[in-house]
Amino acid sequence: MIIVMSPKATQENIDRVIDRLKDSGLRAHLSTGEDCTIIGVIGDRKKIAGLEVSMMEGVEKTVRITEKYKLVSRNFHPENTIVDVAGFPIGGEELAIMAGPCSVESEEQLMEAAKAVKAGGAQFLRGGAFKPRTSPYDFQGLAVDGLKMLRRVADTVGLRVVTEIVDKEDIEAVGKYADIYQVGARNMQNFQLLKALGKTRKPVMLKRGLSATISEWLNAAEYIMAGGNENVIFCERGIRTYETFTRNTLDISAVAAVKELSHLPIIVDPSHGTGRWQMVQPMARAAVAASCDGLIIEVHPHPEVALSDGDQSLTPKNFNALMEELKKIAVVMGRRV
Amino acid sequence: MIIVMSPKATQENIDRVIDRLKDSGLRAHLSTGEDCTIIGVIGDRKKIAGLEVSMMEGVEKTVRITEKYKLVSRNFHPENTIVDVAGFPIGGEELAIMAGPCSVESEEQLMEAAKAVKAGGAQFLRGGAFKPRTSPYDFQGLAVDGLKMLRRVADTVGLRVVTEIVDKEDIEAVGKYADIYQVGARNMQNFQLLKALGKTRKPVMLKRGLSATISEWLNAAEYIMAGGNENVIFCERGIRTYETFTRNTLDISAVAAVKELSHLPIIVDPSHGTGRWQMVQPMARAAVAASCDGLIIEVHPHPEVALSDGDQSLTPKNFNALMEELKKIAVVMGRRV
Amino acid sequence: MIIVMSPKATQENIDRVIDRLKDSGLRAHLSTGEDCTIIGVIGDRKKIAGLEVSMMEGVEKTVRITEKYKLVSRNFHPENTIVDVAGFPIGGEELAIMAGPCSVESEEQLMEAAKAVKAGGAQFLRGGAFKPRTSPYDFQGLAVDGLKMLRRVADTVGLRVVTEIVDKEDIEAVGKYADIYQVGARNMQNFQLLKALGKTRKPVMLKRGLSATISEWLNAAEYIMAGGNENVIFCERGIRTYETFTRNTLDISAVAAVKELSHLPIIVDPSHGTGRWQMVQPMARAAVAASCDGLIIEVHPHPEVALSDGDQSLTPKNFNALMEELKKIAVVMGRRV
Amino acid sequence: MIIVMSPKATQENIDRVIDRLKDSGLRAHLSTGEDCTIIGVIGDRKKIAGLEVSMMEGVEKTVRITEKYKLVSRNFHPENTIVDVAGFPIGGEELAIMAGPCSVESEEQLMEAAKAVKAGGAQFLRGGAFKPRTSPYDFQGLAVDGLKMLRRVADTVGLRVVTEIVDKEDIEAVGKYADIYQVGARNMQNFQLLKALGKTRKPVMLKRGLSATISEWLNAAEYIMAGGNENVIFCERGIRTYETFTRNTLDISAVAAVKELSHLPIIVDPSHGTGRWQMVQPMARAAVAASCDGLIIEVHPHPEVALSDGDQSLTPKNFNALMEELKKIAVVMGRRV
Repeated sequence: MIIVMSPKATQENIDRVIDRLKDSGLRAHLSTGEDCTIIGVIGDRKKIAGLEVSMMEGVEKTVRITEKYKLVSRNFHPENTIVDVAGFPIGGEELAIMAGPCSVESEEQLMEAAKAVKAGGAQFLRGGAFKPRTSPYDFQGLAVDGLKMLRRVADTVGLRVVTEIVDKEDIEAVGKYADIYQVGARNMQNFQLLKALGKTRKPVMLKRGLSATISEWLNAAEYIMAGGNENVIFCERGIRTYETFTRNTLDISAVAAVKELSHLPIIVDPSHGTGRWQMVQPMARAAVAASCDGLIIEVHPHPEVALSDGDQSLTPKNFNALMEELKKIAVVMGRRV
Repeated sequence: MIIVMSPKATQENIDRVIDRLKDSGLRAHLSTGEDCTIIGVIGDRKKIAGLEVSMMEGVEKTVRITEKYKLVSRNFHPENTIVDVAGFPIGGEELAIMAGPCSVESEEQLMEAAKAVKAGGAQFLRGGAFKPRTSPYDFQGLAVDGLKMLRRVADTVGLRVVTEIVDKEDIEAVGKYADIYQVGARNMQNFQLLKALGKTRKPVMLKRGLSATISEWLNAAEYIMAGGNENVIFCERGIRTYETFTRNTLDISAVAAVKELSHLPIIVDPSHGTGRWQMVQPMARAAVAASCDGLIIEVHPHPEVALSDGDQSLTPKNFNALMEELKKIAVVMGRRV
Repeated sequence: MIIVMSPKATQENIDRVIDRLKDSGLRAHLSTGEDCTIIGVIGDRKKIAGLEVSMMEGVEKTVRITEKYKLVSRNFHPENTIVDVAGFPIGGEELAIMAGPCSVESEEQLMEAAKAVKAGGAQFLRGGAFKPRTSPYDFQGLAVDGLKMLRRVADTVGLRVVTEIVDKEDIEAVGKYADIYQVGARNMQNFQLLKALGKTRKPVMLKRGLSATISEWLNAAEYIMAGGNENVIFCERGIRTYETFTRNTLDISAVAAVKELSHLPIIVDPSHGTGRWQMVQPMARAAVAASCDGLIIEVHPHPEVALSDGDQSLTPKNFNALMEELKKIAVVMGRRV
Repeated sequence: MIIVMSPKATQENIDRVIDRLKDSGLRAHLSTGEDCTIIGVIGDRKKIAGLEVSMMEGVEKTVRITEKYKLVSRNFHPENTIVDVAGFPIGGEELAIMAGPCSVESEEQLMEAAKAVKAGGAQFLRGGAFKPRTSPYDFQGLAVDGLKMLRRVADTVGLRVVTEIVDKEDIEAVGKYADIYQVGARNMQNFQLLKALGKTRKPVMLKRGLSATISEWLNAAEYIMAGGNENVIFCERGIRTYETFTRNTLDISAVAAVKELSHLPIIVDPSHGTGRWQMVQPMARAAVAASCDGLIIEVHPHPEVALSDGDQSLTPKNFNALMEELKKIAVVMGRRV
């Protein structure tokens, strides 16, 4: 941490800050400039984390230098991590393709979608059984019935299951039927859920919060890893900005940022990220070109009758066309679909 | 809902949309303009909510007109609601003042703070026992021990207790010791928690999410009211913007917006809203002048040693000075402190 | 400036950075912590401003500590500045009230508005003659004819004139008829215009850019002051956020921020800041309670026929009601209307 | 336009709105739903643009349906436009690569950079002679001397010149030496400059404003085209969000949006868009995969001594590596570098 003293700080003010540091078991390195004195704080990371000096007289501001996450950081784990999901290595050469409807609506709908995405090349079936919806009057999902359908259909067709968990109470139920726990954007900082997932060993896909910084996102993942679960996968799904043409602003640069800061794999969701099916294709290509490890895409056999998010779902035909394009981009990136 | 057809839509495209509406039990009103045809959708609100036509050929965009919340809306309840909290009417003539430390750290610290805020005129003691923190390595609160301290201290000094709940599992424990459940910004769309709180009858103070729209916030409150709990209080605590000088951007205009759209009371948190103790005083005055029903303010006997958020805590002395100012503004607003 | 070295930086990396500093005439203060080494850069402010070391091997990041603005800063001018505008002291005890229509439409409309705002207590007539509009097909203003009307009407009624300038070419023309040059949000970083205004001595009211930080805003004002024109007035007019209920998010906390960082006066525009006439009244009260030095408010005799921004204009009757309220708040703040 | 009446609107309120429409030469189509009445406004686009009814009693809100831009819109010009720049077709099969230093610093530096980018495959030399800088004390560029250097160096090496214009007064000077006028983000809504550029016939590259919506950007381009200059090229350069890890958030989805809404070509600037040279490579690949028509990239022979934006400049070596990658992605997209 850096403490910047005000140009008007007195020597006494400075001495008091230094005393405070000493009392906290920390050391001070002074840099006296023309405009102001800067104090570098040195010592134990946790002691620094708990330090509060902003209220002290003469202190202008404090700047924290080091990130708090550790297990998630590439500094502590330089090689890429590959997360094994029921035999499929996420973060490996082959891109993970997760596809399916936004919500599980019926076994028939799900089967139709599952066959289509399997044929297109997906390895994972996605579908929401517990749906977090803005209004209590919107369709909330089929719950455990939906989970069972997901498992049956996935097993029949030969796919793995990724589905959202919204309550730590459901960890056992969801864990029974799914291969990956998906934590949605609204729950990225639901720390109780994250801690509970940290106690499992099943892979967790952690979506970025609607307005989460990269740093907050990595710290959220640290909650899971600190509990002992090392199988964490990030998922960029668009952030909230002032733009209204798209539902969210898909932050493709987050892929590069996560790859730089962390060793964990990252998936991109161009469906929620844009909210417009017309934009899924170009954004999926862009994500692969930016080095993501996979995609999660909404595919609905009949998007115009979907109970949720029809606007952003691809038809099976469009999904196939996208997969053909991705194959070529993947090759350029030394990956494959 | 309004369906805007593309300038290039054919008559057949339009007919198909109309057929879809009929099939869904809805009616269509056409307005044929120079550039395009607009279809007004008429009928049952829930049927309209489930309608998806954006994927249909010739449809350019759809515009939803009506808000989904109802119990929360002033349209359905024109008079202001007053929420009784252990005998104190929030939303009445007297402003609710909630004050105390960010985190409960020790009984000694809490007692000192409680006496100070009571002397200054607060009716509520605030303090976090369960703390949602960005990093798993930050101080996470004293949990049930903290709750007990809050109750003991509040009872001794003569204050009501408001404290955060972060897990629906804690509803009973927190309910035993607190007078108001506080739902924090990160949990504003933790719908499981909201639904569970809807089943209680104890007042809930719902903080606005970091990047929640006014509409999403009111819909979140609808989750609580839809469960049967009518004792909901809003709390504006600053939104996330690009500005970095302040921790958040305190949206005082949200007070006016909520007053226009809803009958429920609204409290303002200038401490988290700005993250700078120097700004708490002017923002508290502004909030009262904008017609808020109360304030929640961090006061710490020794902010420079606080375990969390010392930067934004007032000293007891500054809190007293603020209360003197608020008294005068309150009078002008036909309120009192 | 602080240079944070990577945990993996070698001694050679560090030495090279130190050499670079020496070559630039700067000094280095090292703080060697457990995780990393931090280098404090000391020396001439301008030399530091031009320093680029981020590309050097082993450098993790750089943190700039000091603001670049100087003349605008309260550090260099602790007392409040009062800007005299044709005999009216902006920043003094009396609040400056600028009111009138968004656009000058006709002499009749302007006269009606001017009489109304004068009767209500305004000292300044506002009105746009040059209108920056999103679309080239929107009404662009009456230009010099509008300026002349403003002057004639203001002189007749006994008001000062504030109006927007959008082109440095118009400095003479606008200066001839107006008492304050208003620089709009879109031109806050039109540095050519700012430099040209810096050469005049007429007061300039600098609106905050749509997404300008406080720091950028103060630096923009520095452009004007650096040219020799010390008569700068800030105007907060709402920033762009994700919220759509209001046109902008009026950042009342900017008033407190500017008061802390600068000695210059600040005006608030609740009309553009909210885009909703229903919210002008509460936001104007809040702004005064937050210590602003005045308000600029859209008043139109017949807002429902306004050529621009009717949604946010008050009727004369509502303006009068607002002024009555402001009188009382002003007294509490030690000010008057 | 759609007018949504309040649920509490009376028949008289509705009649008055209809009368207002008739008076304005417009027609009304009523849709009477269960909750409220909706009025579709039909008639001349310009008359609708000038209509203000929000203040009328009983009106809840108004929703504008049609965009105001026309010449820029793909609706009015379905085929892609190719802009010829000194013989190079921007928007054609070959991607336009614009590269060079942020600022022109000296002829030596520029020549070294120009040779490097030419060798790498660029067709355009970029470099700022007029620099809009946040602080008046930052390096402001070499002005006309810089323009002359750009032309001499570009001619020597065999490149076209793209450089920023910040003042309409410089149109002739910049036009004399440059092949494309670049309008920077801060000037995107400097309508005086746009109007003046509309009178020329030289290509204009219009960067997106820091917080401009897609719609505002397209309307800004309409200012240029409405003046008669059809040679407009968009440039996405990152938008302002709450994220601080990157300098801006590069909105790759804007490429897809512009391609959908407009026929004009679009270039992407991953250097300013991220502010971190480490991210230029992945973002450039992503942009090409999203179908952009070219890239503008900062390359500096010695970024660690650059007078501006060294953090985001590539070395010639990294630029070459990037170009090798882009070649492969371009082929997949049916383009070439």
